[in-house]
Amino acid sequence: MLVLITYDVNTEDPAGRKRLRQIARQCVNYGQRVQNSVFECMLDTAQCKVLQAKLLSIMDPERDSLRFYYLGKRYENKIEHFGNQRSYQPEAPLIL
Amino acid sequence: MLVLITYDVNTEDPAGRKRLRQIARQCVNYGQRVQNSVFECMLDTAQCKVLQAKLLSIMDPERDSLRFYYLGKRYENKIEHFGNQRSYQPEAPLIL
Repeated sequence: MLVLITYDVNTEDPAGRKRLRQIARQCVNYGQRVQNSVFECMLDTAQCKVLQAKLLSIMDPERDSLRFYYLGKRYENKIEHFGNQRSYQPEAPLIL
Repeated sequence: MLVLITYDVNTEDPAGRKRLRQIARQCVNYGQRVQNSVFECMLDTAQCKVLQAKLLSIMDPERDSLRFYYLGKRYENKIEHFGNQRSYQPEAPLIL
């Protein structure tokens, strides 16, 4: 199923930026980063529990907000995009 | 139906912050701001077209990204929240 994950964090704070990087690193294992703090992940129920546990261990529950939207299997017609389509890359450069 | 609207904009840029304020002002007419740039709006098809047109007129399509997720009428079990639940208020102070 498609799970939309939105993560709200203060990115003016270096520690917040670091948490966002860590959240992104986990999410892109299962899907793509469609906006700076929005991720679309393909997950089965077990994977979803594992990812949720990882993200909860990274986030600061006092400061950050994390939301999951379960879009199911038939999601193609449920999404519309406008504007810039730049793809977000992992922050760390790829060294070959 | 519930429509989730996510808006990606560079908020380090004053013009970007202004567009986010304008986007937020339109969205909260139909629902609530659940994260800094994530809005949950209750819209029928006609309202959705009107709001979409307004948001498209505000956004900068070269720089910003705007996504709509159509969650339908039965959305209660499709959303899960963790962490901070602060409610976002309109930026302008309310003068009585």
